[in-house]
Amino acid sequence: MPPSNHQVRLAARPSGLPRATDWELTSEPGPEPGPGQFTVKVSHLSIDPAMRGWMNAGASYIPPVEIGAVMRAGAVGRVTASEHPGFAVDDDVYGAFGVQEYAVSDGRGVIKIDTSLAGPSTYLGALGMTGLTAYFGLLDTGRLKAGDTVVVSGAAGAVGSVVGQIAKIKGCRAIGIAGGPDKCRALVEEFGFDAAIDYRAGNLRKALREYAPGGVDVYFDNVGGEILDAVLTCLARGARVVICGAVSQYNETQVRGPANYMMLLVARASMAGMLVFDYEDRYPQAMAELAGWLLAGKIVSREHVVHGTVGDFPQTLLMLFDGVNTGKLVLALDGS
Amino acid sequence: MPPSNHQVRLAARPSGLPRATDWELTSEPGPEPGPGQFTVKVSHLSIDPAMRGWMNAGASYIPPVEIGAVMRAGAVGRVTASEHPGFAVDDDVYGAFGVQEYAVSDGRGVIKIDTSLAGPSTYLGALGMTGLTAYFGLLDTGRLKAGDTVVVSGAAGAVGSVVGQIAKIKGCRAIGIAGGPDKCRALVEEFGFDAAIDYRAGNLRKALREYAPGGVDVYFDNVGGEILDAVLTCLARGARVVICGAVSQYNETQVRGPANYMMLLVARASMAGMLVFDYEDRYPQAMAELAGWLLAGKIVSREHVVHGTVGDFPQTLLMLFDGVNTGKLVLALDGS
Repeated sequence: MPPSNHQVRLAARPSGLPRATDWELTSEPGPEPGPGQFTVKVSHLSIDPAMRGWMNAGASYIPPVEIGAVMRAGAVGRVTASEHPGFAVDDDVYGAFGVQEYAVSDGRGVIKIDTSLAGPSTYLGALGMTGLTAYFGLLDTGRLKAGDTVVVSGAAGAVGSVVGQIAKIKGCRAIGIAGGPDKCRALVEEFGFDAAIDYRAGNLRKALREYAPGGVDVYFDNVGGEILDAVLTCLARGARVVICGAVSQYNETQVRGPANYMMLLVARASMAGMLVFDYEDRYPQAMAELAGWLLAGKIVSREHVVHGTVGDFPQTLLMLFDGVNTGKLVLALDGS
Repeated sequence: MPPSNHQVRLAARPSGLPRATDWELTSEPGPEPGPGQFTVKVSHLSIDPAMRGWMNAGASYIPPVEIGAVMRAGAVGRVTASEHPGFAVDDDVYGAFGVQEYAVSDGRGVIKIDTSLAGPSTYLGALGMTGLTAYFGLLDTGRLKAGDTVVVSGAAGAVGSVVGQIAKIKGCRAIGIAGGPDKCRALVEEFGFDAAIDYRAGNLRKALREYAPGGVDVYFDNVGGEILDAVLTCLARGARVVICGAVSQYNETQVRGPANYMMLLVARASMAGMLVFDYEDRYPQAMAELAGWLLAGKIVSREHVVHGTVGDFPQTLLMLFDGVNTGKLVLALDGS
């Protein structure tokens, strides 16, 4: 008998911050692979701001998680049984395995990972969707050029910390916006940003003008809200604003649009949305480049790992909206 | 003695809609040209939504009109005296001559126009900044491709009516948004749009889905506000949103930002601001192409000409914000 499989399912669509009653913890017999399938024991769950959006009804870039379904999550795990020719027992893999202990997969969207190169959680961080989002968002959507002044919000978060480091590698000035002195210290001392701005200290615009006197060439936005509005007033001519996320708005019932969007006209700037999934055919090249930078010590992947069980998922998710984490938030399923 | 020169000057910075007390009507002796200068008798004033922005303090794409200064305006007129080698008496010219009867110029930014080709007011419409804004906004910023579905707001206005007509010339589907059945009828019957949506009739999103079932490839926005938010929910993958103006917001003390801006991410779309002045080196080529289309009957330039004096400028400007005009609003200085 395979071990039982504990899962977290969406019980109700939240209004505002997700509450305990929006989730259901279920248990069912561990799955066995059918022909062309394999089973994965999940070891690390990626905890992402985007999860909040997946819980809402309505069309988006990806269908919503249905009520009663296992919550969607990127995850790393190890193959425990296989009837798939491409995957063998003990292969380490990344995939959208969901918030559960065991998943069955047909291999679609699953990537084999080399855990001798970097730990499993790093494949949810700089070597995973997080790093790839920073990479393509900055280089492709942001059309980064050497010498640009780059500002990133949520800079101490998973994507933001990689954005700043890639900007530095590419010969740019990197300015991070984060909440609180500890995060700001980490930006400069750990991640090598040129400057950090604590948005909680007030006077964000003044700080932006001081650190980016020539204006902001690329703004990588993870948060939306007031911070987006402030940066819009400091754009350089021809600036590119990359819309990657809006974590300040995900739990708002009334989204605050950027009131200063007409600064796009004043600065002849553009604002564009990006989704990492569009770059799937370029993942291997980008991951190789990111791995090279990581091994050469040019980028640091910092994961904030919470140890627990799938039952700890609901409160771990809330950490993102409290701004508790520095770096990539990961739930390691090694607790009891 | 030269005739006296009546002028409209900015007396105060308005809050909301400009009021009579925000203006001052002055009179001074008619100007005489110095060396390298010429004098223009202004015949037609361009009345533009952007004027409202020029009245505000603060940095923008162009310095604000100072309190006490003659109000800035694009205009057409005829040279009455010249000590400039490039301009002769009786030349017809376009320039930023301001809201006054006579202007002195050194020729910078002044374009000679051929009034045998089209009437003077057309050089404020399809053959002027209006037409050029539509041309570069749609073709350059909007990166128009044949087969695109184009939506334009303020479609019965000066720029909007030309946008739709260029879209048709380029093999696209043109959908116009305007206020009221008369304007909507003009869009289809006079300007050749494929469809017109009366935003005052309600249910703009439903109409957009009906007329653009495959989504909107290019949205040319002149109005901002609720209409921008509605169109953002109907973008096709890879859509381009051109921010040309925001007439619905110019008199608001609190600008409404586009709450649905995250649809840029869902649609992997971009939103970019444009200013016609950036294309000055390409004006001759574009004006020649626009003139060719006009003479071939492929575009119609409709000007809404108010006949009066410079003293009629304040109330004529307000017509823009009431949505009274169809086509380019022009004040012809031939009244008494």
